[in-house]
Amino acid sequence: MRIVVTNCNTTREMTEDIVRGARGAAGPDTAVTGLTPAWGPESAEGWLDSYLSAAAVLDALRTYAGPPYDAVVLAGFGEHGREGVRELVDVPVVDITEAAAHLACLLGRRYGVVTTLDRSRGQIEDSLETAGVARNCAAVVGTGLGVLDLAADPARTETAFLAAAERARDAGAEVLILGCAGMTGLERTVARKLGMPVVDGVGAAVKLAESLVALGLTTSRAGGYAKPLPKHRVWGQRAAPPDAPGTPGVREVPVPQGRQS
Amino acid sequence: MRIVVTNCNTTREMTEDIVRGARGAAGPDTAVTGLTPAWGPESAEGWLDSYLSAAAVLDALRTYAGPPYDAVVLAGFGEHGREGVRELVDVPVVDITEAAAHLACLLGRRYGVVTTLDRSRGQIEDSLETAGVARNCAAVVGTGLGVLDLAADPARTETAFLAAAERARDAGAEVLILGCAGMTGLERTVARKLGMPVVDGVGAAVKLAESLVALGLTTSRAGGYAKPLPKHRVWGQRAAPPDAPGTPGVREVPVPQGRQS
Amino acid sequence: MRIVVTNCNTTREMTEDIVRGARGAAGPDTAVTGLTPAWGPESAEGWLDSYLSAAAVLDALRTYAGPPYDAVVLAGFGEHGREGVRELVDVPVVDITEAAAHLACLLGRRYGVVTTLDRSRGQIEDSLETAGVARNCAAVVGTGLGVLDLAADPARTETAFLAAAERARDAGAEVLILGCAGMTGLERTVARKLGMPVVDGVGAAVKLAESLVALGLTTSRAGGYAKPLPKHRVWGQRAAPPDAPGTPGVREVPVPQGRQS
Amino acid sequence: MRIVVTNCNTTREMTEDIVRGARGAAGPDTAVTGLTPAWGPESAEGWLDSYLSAAAVLDALRTYAGPPYDAVVLAGFGEHGREGVRELVDVPVVDITEAAAHLACLLGRRYGVVTTLDRSRGQIEDSLETAGVARNCAAVVGTGLGVLDLAADPARTETAFLAAAERARDAGAEVLILGCAGMTGLERTVARKLGMPVVDGVGAAVKLAESLVALGLTTSRAGGYAKPLPKHRVWGQRAAPPDAPGTPGVREVPVPQGRQS
Amino acid sequence: MRIVVTNCNTTREMTEDIVRGARGAAGPDTAVTGLTPAWGPESAEGWLDSYLSAAAVLDALRTYAGPPYDAVVLAGFGEHGREGVRELVDVPVVDITEAAAHLACLLGRRYGVVTTLDRSRGQIEDSLETAGVARNCAAVVGTGLGVLDLAADPARTETAFLAAAERARDAGAEVLILGCAGMTGLERTVARKLGMPVVDGVGAAVKLAESLVALGLTTSRAGGYAKPLPKHRVWGQRAAPPDAPGTPGVREVPVPQGRQS
Amino acid sequence: MRIVVTNCNTTREMTEDIVRGARGAAGPDTAVTGLTPAWGPESAEGWLDSYLSAAAVLDALRTYAGPPYDAVVLAGFGEHGREGVRELVDVPVVDITEAAAHLACLLGRRYGVVTTLDRSRGQIEDSLETAGVARNCAAVVGTGLGVLDLAADPARTETAFLAAAERARDAGAEVLILGCAGMTGLERTVARKLGMPVVDGVGAAVKLAESLVALGLTTSRAGGYAKPLPKHRVWGQRAAPPDAPGTPGVREVPVPQGRQS
Repeated sequence: MRIVVTNCNTTREMTEDIVRGARGAAGPDTAVTGLTPAWGPESAEGWLDSYLSAAAVLDALRTYAGPPYDAVVLAGFGEHGREGVRELVDVPVVDITEAAAHLACLLGRRYGVVTTLDRSRGQIEDSLETAGVARNCAAVVGTGLGVLDLAADPARTETAFLAAAERARDAGAEVLILGCAGMTGLERTVARKLGMPVVDGVGAAVKLAESLVALGLTTSRAGGYAKPLPKHRVWGQRAAPPDAPGTPGVREVPVPQGRQS
Repeated sequence: MRIVVTNCNTTREMTEDIVRGARGAAGPDTAVTGLTPAWGPESAEGWLDSYLSAAAVLDALRTYAGPPYDAVVLAGFGEHGREGVRELVDVPVVDITEAAAHLACLLGRRYGVVTTLDRSRGQIEDSLETAGVARNCAAVVGTGLGVLDLAADPARTETAFLAAAERARDAGAEVLILGCAGMTGLERTVARKLGMPVVDGVGAAVKLAESLVALGLTTSRAGGYAKPLPKHRVWGQRAAPPDAPGTPGVREVPVPQGRQS
Repeated sequence: MRIVVTNCNTTREMTEDIVRGARGAAGPDTAVTGLTPAWGPESAEGWLDSYLSAAAVLDALRTYAGPPYDAVVLAGFGEHGREGVRELVDVPVVDITEAAAHLACLLGRRYGVVTTLDRSRGQIEDSLETAGVARNCAAVVGTGLGVLDLAADPARTETAFLAAAERARDAGAEVLILGCAGMTGLERTVARKLGMPVVDGVGAAVKLAESLVALGLTTSRAGGYAKPLPKHRVWGQRAAPPDAPGTPGVREVPVPQGRQS
Repeated sequence: MRIVVTNCNTTREMTEDIVRGARGAAGPDTAVTGLTPAWGPESAEGWLDSYLSAAAVLDALRTYAGPPYDAVVLAGFGEHGREGVRELVDVPVVDITEAAAHLACLLGRRYGVVTTLDRSRGQIEDSLETAGVARNCAAVVGTGLGVLDLAADPARTETAFLAAAERARDAGAEVLILGCAGMTGLERTVARKLGMPVVDGVGAAVKLAESLVALGLTTSRAGGYAKPLPKHRVWGQRAAPPDAPGTPGVREVPVPQGRQS
Repeated sequence: MRIVVTNCNTTREMTEDIVRGARGAAGPDTAVTGLTPAWGPESAEGWLDSYLSAAAVLDALRTYAGPPYDAVVLAGFGEHGREGVRELVDVPVVDITEAAAHLACLLGRRYGVVTTLDRSRGQIEDSLETAGVARNCAAVVGTGLGVLDLAADPARTETAFLAAAERARDAGAEVLILGCAGMTGLERTVARKLGMPVVDGVGAAVKLAESLVALGLTTSRAGGYAKPLPKHRVWGQRAAPPDAPGTPGVREVPVPQGRQS
Repeated sequence: MRIVVTNCNTTREMTEDIVRGARGAAGPDTAVTGLTPAWGPESAEGWLDSYLSAAAVLDALRTYAGPPYDAVVLAGFGEHGREGVRELVDVPVVDITEAAAHLACLLGRRYGVVTTLDRSRGQIEDSLETAGVARNCAAVVGTGLGVLDLAADPARTETAFLAAAERARDAGAEVLILGCAGMTGLERTVARKLGMPVVDGVGAAVKLAESLVALGLTTSRAGGYAKPLPKHRVWGQRAAPPDAPGTPGVREVPVPQGRQS
């Protein structure tokens, strides 16, 4: 079977890392295709990024022209779009946020999530809640590291992860979840050091996607995830200026001309 | 003060209707500016539409070049994007979904929402939950009418609304909410016929936005709604083909080449 | 329009302070009338006071003989009576507890309440819960100051508020609420020092009351808030001795002749 | 031991019925003293009545001059005041609403409440929620009969109870609760006809009060139920006119001169 | 890898059916070993049966002497024991109740469970709640058929299932779960007739077990599922008489000599 | 009346202690009979022990041959089996876990449980949740002492209890519960030292059982607690080897031959 794994941002190196992680988890008969959105944020760190990413991922799947596939894995931890992709495609869709939580529930009474910036905690909490698996979540804890900082200094990342993990454990977590696709691979070393199972969402989602395909199950059309209605939709403005930090003439932080608080 | 009211879809007639409703509710010193996204769906009816709309609304506000404004009203009932706009702009942001619920909670012990298609119920439920006002929601009920059908036959719309309202009342609702920006104006006739208060989200959001501005309050930056980080973001693919129903050569319903269930 | 703002206790100085705060928030066309109950506690600090206050406020509104009014604001933070007043009067009723929470939900993902004595926390929690807005409340924290101590030493009040606010922030609050009508006015200085929005319930309730009146909305009679049934009711005992501390012949703390634990 | 059982209204016949029920449940060494408030509503049917009743019951206990007692039973189903009485007296306090629910939880997985008017349902739901026993409540159902109608036609009361009980059973109730002190005595006949246990709150509260006294337990002072602070309190207006239906010159339904909806 | 699939009752034909279902779902490299408890009930239909079964399943695994295994699947829908097995063995443990719910959450917003007797609904609800996946459960519905009746008349079973499924759908279910291991195999025909995905817990649990093993994950020892303490335990009374229906000299229904209600 | 009090383990000294505590709480007309299971764990400390204990307690009651009884008290704090015993016997059944929580809810707004080992916290939380009384539980805290250590060194037990109680109080508890039947008797000294009511589950359950009997109430058969169906059940394997620590030839800790993590 073939699984398309979508990155939620436009950074191709991160897609490659994610695909590597996905292939490490996939069964011998599973091919993994990585998909990088043609537009969107270079990393998703906050609500604005997340909504931009959701539309870009939907567009990437809508215009996908590669070989047929059997399932989609959405590799943005805490990012939006999950339910829209379920409407769009006819194959099972598994988001790494929910996937990690589903498996974590099988391994202990309470789980914790260790993520990047504190600002991402709210999105993750909401994503777990609407996915129906928040009940046993003891804590979502930030490491203070940005998405693109994770790979820069692996030792610092591991140290920050272990410190955040202790806080999650104090809050009652018996199992930990890597709260960013960019942390894939870290689970092995930290699990040993912590003496606790650590779940990587990318691997979890690949196995759940394989499971659904093997069982012949796919998204229900009877209710909320019916197919999108046929209608006129335009996917992005042709001439919209990009955001780019530090580029002359381009606003670094978009601020409208409203009242300043 | 000036309030920018964003439509969540690209249908300009609907923006005009919404602006008319907003002006009807606005105080004498409030100017209302309508904003129609330059891209996105012609109507938002489902998760895919909602995520597409969220990015388009963010882009419209990001590139907004009109007169300064003091608050934003998001006029998509149950649609995504609320938290992203809170990050983006420095002025108060009020979504019509939450606004209607906040006022409804002041008018009765339980409220009900009457919306368009049944498929939109899930989004509305999730939006109320994460906004923190779902506790007193007795039911979200669909009328079976699409967004663009509402204006076509007002008598049919009213009949369908009244029938759905009875179901909400049976579930315990003491107050009703118009579950679509396109229903604005209907509240007066149906309230009389039902003998119950009926809250229009557009009017509710305008009054809440005016209230926050008058009190000098705006979104907290201390936590989840910090400003977006400066980074490279691309807002839509330059050459992405639009979805258009019935147009030769364009897919009516986007289906990837995956497995068919 | 005219709004009647009811103090929950018999201390007229406090009514005047509250009216001053309400007038500061009210629009140019809004007249504010203060109403002090003719009986009840001199300050409400606990459940017994709160229930005594509720009946006294209802009696004050029942026997009100001033100019016609368009809305009622109940200015007892966490105090009882809200639903009874909704039954009694035909105009919108807004309680400052719920009002502050409704606006706070629009400004951040989680809010905190800073109140007077720790003993009041339970009432506030219950009031937010039944009003339907407790979901996003991160914490209710006491300052240790009594209601009538607040005005005595403004510097001490501010210091105590800031210390309690830190505890609320640690619990996840991104927005703060002044948890006593007697704190009105404090919001401006502490908001600046904390770098967070601070909501005063009196101002919030005035704006919500104005909003409901402007939209032509009032309490639903279809359900729990139907009009009181006509029946015989006696409002207070003619010859009941008051509680008064330190007065010879009057019990300071009412204790029946039951078993002492 | 002696238990004071307080009626929540001023109708002495109802106090006598309640005392009779309480004595039927009390152990051989328990004396039961009935207490009728000197003021308040003739029956409590709604929020206004409930808050008026709460203050009147507190006043009755505050000025109680009878023999010493060991516990208080509050015999108003769904009525307010419970927490205030816990502050006031040093002996255990049991409210018949919570008492019935506590015992019902021991008899089946879900319980239902059958009460008088539909308008009382909200108060009962809130009372169970804040008492901490709402989780297993399947439904609160009204019979449509007023408090003072219950005794008028026992056959009609039983028929209405059985019809409402069926609705509670359909909602999942395995145990029923008599939702009004005035129904005391009905439990035996309806339990047989329904084939389900039926709990009377008055009897339940007497047994729970006896249990607490026997175990030497009373209300915690460490937290929310600390003793009322010594302060000036006035219990009712000396010259307030009573409400009386049909009496010339007295308003049947109290309506202030505000806007009419 | 090898998975041990435990039947929760002593009926070997049912073990064989379950093993057949498990093998149908298992990957090519997975061996499935069935395990029938040496004692316990012939079918588990109620709380007493469930607790008896839990101890018997634990004993069967404790004294298991077959080939080494990599995971355990507990094939009693809604039955107890899950957490005890997690303490006992060092390999991943997946219960079919939670497994079906985890996969169902990926396929629709709300799922429903169709089970055997109505009396089993409570156990299933509690099992889903404590497993952390009850939030999206719309309904648990009984078919009225006993466990051992399921295989007797497949046409009747299918008819009863479809009727119960309609009730679950009316309650909001978009996905269905087979609520008994003895229904394994039914999912294919009913899914087609209902136009909804139907999840079989046995297949779901096998895939989740394979997933955990493949990812190198097993139960956390850091907290609630620490290893059982070494101590003296006796597993069943040597001379306890069995329950056997219709056997002379053996009580059909065990009733102690207490009060008869 | 006669109450059978079942120990959840096979340690007869502990049964005697529990019976002593039960007799101390029982009324003058109540006889207490202790019942020690003929098999099961010597102490219940974890999920495996708890499920083993549940079956053994059911078997003990099923084969009970003593004098007729009127109620059953289950004296295992946080242990399983409650619902099965409700199916089995025709008299009221009260578990000490729920009993303590029911009474604690009457004494303060939030209660805390102080138990033995931290590993037992999960079972207690689940037991309170499914009993319907978890809402007001502020914390479940472990002392670090095993069940059989409690009696060994009373001074150490008291010290550990007081330390854990402080943590519960910090979490908001206003009332404490002894979280193990083996702590019976401790409530008096610690209540004095803590200045808070402390509830012993054994005494609480005895009083609740007496209450139900006096009111003529017993378990509902209309729903989840219907009588067990007549069928073949075998209660324990005739030749199963016991677990015994340190005994040559017997495994100290039962571990199957699966994968070692």
